[in-house]
Amino acid sequence: MTSCLIRSVKYICNDIKFAAARVSCLTKNYINRPVCRISSVTPKEHPKMADRILPQIFKYVDDNTESYKQLLKEAVAIPSVSSDVKYRKECVRMVEWMQGKLKEVGATTELRDVGYQTIAGEQVKLPPVLVGVLGNDSKKNTICIYGHLDVQPALKSDGWETEPFELVERDGKLFGRGSTDDKGPVLGWLHAINAYKGVGEELPVNLKFVFECMEESGSEGLDELLLEKLKPEGFFKDVDYVCISDNYWLGTTKPCITYGLRGISYYFLEIECAKMDLHSGVYGGTVHEAMTDLIHMMNQLVDKNGRIQVTGIYDSVAPLTENEKKLYTTIDFDTEAYRHSIGATKLAHNGDKEQILMHRWRYPSLSLHGIEGAAFQPGAKTVIPGKVIGKFSIRIVPNQEPEEVEKLVFDYVNKKWAEHGSPNKMTITAQSGRAWTENPDHPHYQAAARATRLIYLTEPDMSREGGSIPVTITLQEASGRNVLLLPMGAGDDMAHSQNEKINVRNYIEGIKLFAAYLHEVSKLSK
Amino acid sequence: MTSCLIRSVKYICNDIKFAAARVSCLTKNYINRPVCRISSVTPKEHPKMADRILPQIFKYVDDNTESYKQLLKEAVAIPSVSSDVKYRKECVRMVEWMQGKLKEVGATTELRDVGYQTIAGEQVKLPPVLVGVLGNDSKKNTICIYGHLDVQPALKSDGWETEPFELVERDGKLFGRGSTDDKGPVLGWLHAINAYKGVGEELPVNLKFVFECMEESGSEGLDELLLEKLKPEGFFKDVDYVCISDNYWLGTTKPCITYGLRGISYYFLEIECAKMDLHSGVYGGTVHEAMTDLIHMMNQLVDKNGRIQVTGIYDSVAPLTENEKKLYTTIDFDTEAYRHSIGATKLAHNGDKEQILMHRWRYPSLSLHGIEGAAFQPGAKTVIPGKVIGKFSIRIVPNQEPEEVEKLVFDYVNKKWAEHGSPNKMTITAQSGRAWTENPDHPHYQAAARATRLIYLTEPDMSREGGSIPVTITLQEASGRNVLLLPMGAGDDMAHSQNEKINVRNYIEGIKLFAAYLHEVSKLSK
Repeated sequence: MTSCLIRSVKYICNDIKFAAARVSCLTKNYINRPVCRISSVTPKEHPKMADRILPQIFKYVDDNTESYKQLLKEAVAIPSVSSDVKYRKECVRMVEWMQGKLKEVGATTELRDVGYQTIAGEQVKLPPVLVGVLGNDSKKNTICIYGHLDVQPALKSDGWETEPFELVERDGKLFGRGSTDDKGPVLGWLHAINAYKGVGEELPVNLKFVFECMEESGSEGLDELLLEKLKPEGFFKDVDYVCISDNYWLGTTKPCITYGLRGISYYFLEIECAKMDLHSGVYGGTVHEAMTDLIHMMNQLVDKNGRIQVTGIYDSVAPLTENEKKLYTTIDFDTEAYRHSIGATKLAHNGDKEQILMHRWRYPSLSLHGIEGAAFQPGAKTVIPGKVIGKFSIRIVPNQEPEEVEKLVFDYVNKKWAEHGSPNKMTITAQSGRAWTENPDHPHYQAAARATRLIYLTEPDMSREGGSIPVTITLQEASGRNVLLLPMGAGDDMAHSQNEKINVRNYIEGIKLFAAYLHEVSKLSK
Repeated sequence: MTSCLIRSVKYICNDIKFAAARVSCLTKNYINRPVCRISSVTPKEHPKMADRILPQIFKYVDDNTESYKQLLKEAVAIPSVSSDVKYRKECVRMVEWMQGKLKEVGATTELRDVGYQTIAGEQVKLPPVLVGVLGNDSKKNTICIYGHLDVQPALKSDGWETEPFELVERDGKLFGRGSTDDKGPVLGWLHAINAYKGVGEELPVNLKFVFECMEESGSEGLDELLLEKLKPEGFFKDVDYVCISDNYWLGTTKPCITYGLRGISYYFLEIECAKMDLHSGVYGGTVHEAMTDLIHMMNQLVDKNGRIQVTGIYDSVAPLTENEKKLYTTIDFDTEAYRHSIGATKLAHNGDKEQILMHRWRYPSLSLHGIEGAAFQPGAKTVIPGKVIGKFSIRIVPNQEPEEVEKLVFDYVNKKWAEHGSPNKMTITAQSGRAWTENPDHPHYQAAARATRLIYLTEPDMSREGGSIPVTITLQEASGRNVLLLPMGAGDDMAHSQNEKINVRNYIEGIKLFAAYLHEVSKLSK
């Protein structure tokens, strides 16, 4: 029996009140998992801190639950929507707010200017990136933590049950834009640091922070900052590990650690028939309408089963090996619960578990997101839009290179446009980010797995994700270190959607997980 | 030589200042038209007022130009957008504002409750309809005037050069939402009445007003009010003529009077794949996406040349007679100027004048307006919309009946949906209004033509319109009288579009036109 298990048992048995509090927020499903799985844990030496300190930290976290919710409420109340320049001031306010919080825990911080973005020919200042350093003990490991402070757009009229920028607790869930993506996790790190302070314990690692506010809009300016400024300045020189908490569990009960992400190749297909919108009564029947062309073009991209129609798009997808294929069979994933959680009549691939997982993780998918410039409001607007921009994206996978995918899409779209033969103007542009995978057998992953088991008393799945966090690759490149994704939220958190939430359980246990992760990483050899 | 010409000549020669002011705002094109066309005018007896009073009224109008602009500015500043319930209070405010103005000119007014509309299952109160009566002299003719006080949605971010709800004058144009559709014309009537008062002259006709605030949203509640309440109450009993000013000249220099409108059949094609929007990274590849289905379905409706694909849709279109065909050849319409004004590369039907006019007026057209529920904002939103509503409409023409068109569309869409074979939910609903035509040889039209010639010194085109004003038919039915459309604005006013405007010339001369029209109608036998 390992000391880790002993520690867990002590923790459960010796502090009944504490244990009861923790058990109350665990699902039955989770509680019933065999504790004996923990026996496989073999922690390494731990020179800096006795393991006994973690239960004190966990108790401190439980005791401070309300203040953690309150701080998340404050953060959610700042509508830091990065895709709409009218919220740009709120983005800056959000970054400055977080800077204040990092300063409070003793970090040295800096707001780094990352220049301008071009929107409709105009130069718009990007929000600064918050860079911080906490601790400089050469005997300790150093972890670089990345997070983002911006959010997707949200309007109550999109179908939210409550105001999106007002954190509301209901049924053990905290609803609000950014609650899980990514303000909750970012604050989780802050609370974990504070918990060490709260129990009078020195932080067992050095930390470096990179918190940006443009992640939902292609992280503009960040790559240059990381690779051309921070790296030459030596910011990453003493970094040993990189950790990102900006993704989700596969389901709703079992934690996971993520070693792979799909990339993304996002397209803007613009068609113009007139220099302004036209009244459909006055002009209908006399112009070649841009919407007719755009709908035709968008209909060429993907079939009803999700098969991408772009010629050659599947050619470079990494072949499925027998070993990888086997991995999918053991993953705990309930497709019926997944289907039910989104209210779909039927899943793709006839709901086959392995196929569903593979199409989330290792095959590309194409989604048609919408049309800019067309009528989008409720009611019967009778307009012929003069210029429309169709939005679609392909989630790309190993071994697809963005440049290659973009070329295939451009060639295909240009060919289809020529065949269509419209007198209107068509242009297509793209923004892309590469897919990412890491080795899940790395000691960094094992440390995160131990921390997870300690909190959730179960073996985490080693998972991949269908989403994209392009900065993952940049951080891998800038630091040359192992990068790990440690999700806080659950698979039904509805990031990017209406009624985004984080479970109180995931938020609070997630803070403990982060604290335990810092502890486990501190035990790794430098 | 008719007294009408004498009147015109006197008016031009005897008041040099007045004439100069008028001439200055006329285009060269218009000035060069031969005045001798006016010789065809044969006005009837004029028992109530000497024709000499009109020049005084015209001078009064010119002298009060600034105050007319000011009042339009006030009206435009009220964002009475009827399609979005969040502006409902503004709609009510707009109606009440106009009620105050009618009261000021001595009208008896009433705000008529027209009940509720259902939006997303909720009952929302409709703005009241403003009904008014001015004058009750049984010896005078009575005109019923209809106008609307609501406007299309408008945001600066749609591409407006100035704030849409702030009237701005530039280059002889008044820019602002509702300036031409339909606040300018509605105020035109008010100013015409005031001008009679201003020169101390009794109004030569009795007036009845119906001003609603839901025209841009299907005139909900109005038909019931007109047919089931006002008609039985005897509101239309003494009405002799009905006049609507809610459309535009064919071009930019030549006035017209309109005797026909296309109808409209507006469709909401809703497809749902999930009960909420989904993150395209997390869910892409695992669900049958609603957007893929919707784009496929919208692509079945119309081809790139504007040919509607709905089976049987052209079968009931009134055949083109030789007589009607000839009409199109004489109409003054510059297709190249039309093309240039909207910035199109190429018009439909290879820009052929007769074909363009026929496809605006007498053939149906189908426009794809947009998608509700999908991403519409600038930037790269990576969402799989859970429920999307495709909006499209068919402008219908004689002899297409809305019920018949709706059935053809429903049958076609259902057939295509079955062929498509998606597991998602699809529903289609419609709102329709019939096409309308009137006899342009009616004395009412001749009176309006005389008034127009008096102001613009040219023969107005008798035109039809591609747009739809369904209330025209209801007013025809409720009153049993001749209905006439007397446009104030020019063909490039961009109603429903960005940078909607009314020319100062059209606004001011339009007020005079309305005053002259009241005068000319007063001369018609009862």
